[in-house]
Amino acid sequence: MNLTILGCYAATPRTFTNPTSQLLEIKNHLFLIDCGEGTQVQLRKNKIKFSKINHIFISHLHGDHFFGLVGLISTFALLNRTTDLHVYGPKGIKEIITIQLRLSNSWTHYGLFFHELESKESEIIFEDSKVVVRTIPLKHRVYTNGFLFQEKKGARKLNLQAVQNYKIDTCYYQKIKNGGDITLEDGTVIINEKISFDPEPAKSYAFCSDTVYNEGIVPIIANVDVLYHEATFLQSEAALAQKTMHSTAQEAALIALKANAKTLILGHYSTRYENISLFEAEASLLFSNVLLADDGKLFEF
Amino acid sequence: MNLTILGCYAATPRTFTNPTSQLLEIKNHLFLIDCGEGTQVQLRKNKIKFSKINHIFISHLHGDHFFGLVGLISTFALLNRTTDLHVYGPKGIKEIITIQLRLSNSWTHYGLFFHELESKESEIIFEDSKVVVRTIPLKHRVYTNGFLFQEKKGARKLNLQAVQNYKIDTCYYQKIKNGGDITLEDGTVIINEKISFDPEPAKSYAFCSDTVYNEGIVPIIANVDVLYHEATFLQSEAALAQKTMHSTAQEAALIALKANAKTLILGHYSTRYENISLFEAEASLLFSNVLLADDGKLFEF
Repeated sequence: MNLTILGCYAATPRTFTNPTSQLLEIKNHLFLIDCGEGTQVQLRKNKIKFSKINHIFISHLHGDHFFGLVGLISTFALLNRTTDLHVYGPKGIKEIITIQLRLSNSWTHYGLFFHELESKESEIIFEDSKVVVRTIPLKHRVYTNGFLFQEKKGARKLNLQAVQNYKIDTCYYQKIKNGGDITLEDGTVIINEKISFDPEPAKSYAFCSDTVYNEGIVPIIANVDVLYHEATFLQSEAALAQKTMHSTAQEAALIALKANAKTLILGHYSTRYENISLFEAEASLLFSNVLLADDGKLFEF
Repeated sequence: MNLTILGCYAATPRTFTNPTSQLLEIKNHLFLIDCGEGTQVQLRKNKIKFSKINHIFISHLHGDHFFGLVGLISTFALLNRTTDLHVYGPKGIKEIITIQLRLSNSWTHYGLFFHELESKESEIIFEDSKVVVRTIPLKHRVYTNGFLFQEKKGARKLNLQAVQNYKIDTCYYQKIKNGGDITLEDGTVIINEKISFDPEPAKSYAFCSDTVYNEGIVPIIANVDVLYHEATFLQSEAALAQKTMHSTAQEAALIALKANAKTLILGHYSTRYENISLFEAEASLLFSNVLLADDGKLFEF
């Protein structure tokens, strides 16, 4: 599971800082999360294969999280994309994009599917044999969702030596991987644990931005491996965070602690702070494993 | 009259090339012409005072000419702008912007005025005491206008020495600046040319992008000082230019020649060409005063 931060600063794009966008590589999927202005240039700078992005998740309709979407969709068309593209985002996202494609007379030749969200409860919005994606209802000035990406538990791994010792025929291997016990010809039952190993642990990633401090998300993201939580402000600006419905670094750490997350990544810093290491210092007082997002940074888990 | 090229490459924004946007400084106005994705960052990189832009002209509704507009308008709001902003562009531009501001719940606190264009004839769209702006109907795949910016002829300049020699009272100075003759107390008439100088020549700038080769614009831009004309392709790709309704460098030069322009600036290069000096070479065969636009370049006239 790899996470590339394309942009992680709040509000307006600037010369050296980009609005929110990140790319999650999980089980051979390239999931794009949010798409602020300039995201397509950030994808190029980070040498990411555009064409492999088939799913884009938009948290909310503030410009710093979606103004780059229409440009990316248009560029896909100019690059002669043929694969379907799926966009998940708040109700309204379809109208915003289609009106621009219609008026610019540049409808895409590839399939463009919008999955508009309006539920205030967590729901599954994507699922295949390897990954499931759920919404994390957040509290912000407009309707907002975070997203929980969970790998599914894979098949058990064959204990080849044990299987050969018991002289088990290869036609039973899939049954063993699926967790089944085996009955030998003499009637002996070999329990699965003796002939297989546990599968690789399934990993999970939660993206939570933008949001005010909200303990309501803790049960949804409980025990997550990696939590990205917005920290627009430091605790010294707690009143401003409350007023604008953003979080502080301390609040992000408290959520990570209560959710028993393994790792916390901070981002969505207000550009008022010149030194983002202050965010790490503040969050580390409460939570031990804090990382700082920064534009162009790659996290491997 | 200063022209800053913020972006002058066709199609998609890339790591080192930006889509169309330019800033014209004329008679204390800062006019922004087109606004591709990333324009606000280009404005910052070129250290331009955002807040002084009060008029934005959009040629047509292809993404590489307007996808940066909504972001710029939003950033103006975040920067607490209070001055009115006027946007001139094809019918539809208002709907595109307002739907995004409405759905993102971020309506501007400053006055935002849309002047939607749909005429196929040249028309005056802005005028004050010093400048007039007219549309230049272009031919492209969607409804498109170029823009002709013309300084108005200023007042004549007082010939102070002559005025004092004739002992003309200061109360007549404005009349002289306005071109009037003066009758002295003894009845002698002093013709204006004897007591004043010609005003500074009024300058003009024509922006013509995107367009197929179109001689129909020649009468509108006749004798223009500076013509920016798109040259997406070289003549070797003339068929492609015709098909996509763009121009070649040779065609741009032919328009400059027929319009008796003083200077031709080329831009809107396809990113297929690695060396833009080929455009200058081709156009220079027909027209002597060719300049090449490039991102970040400042032209002073």
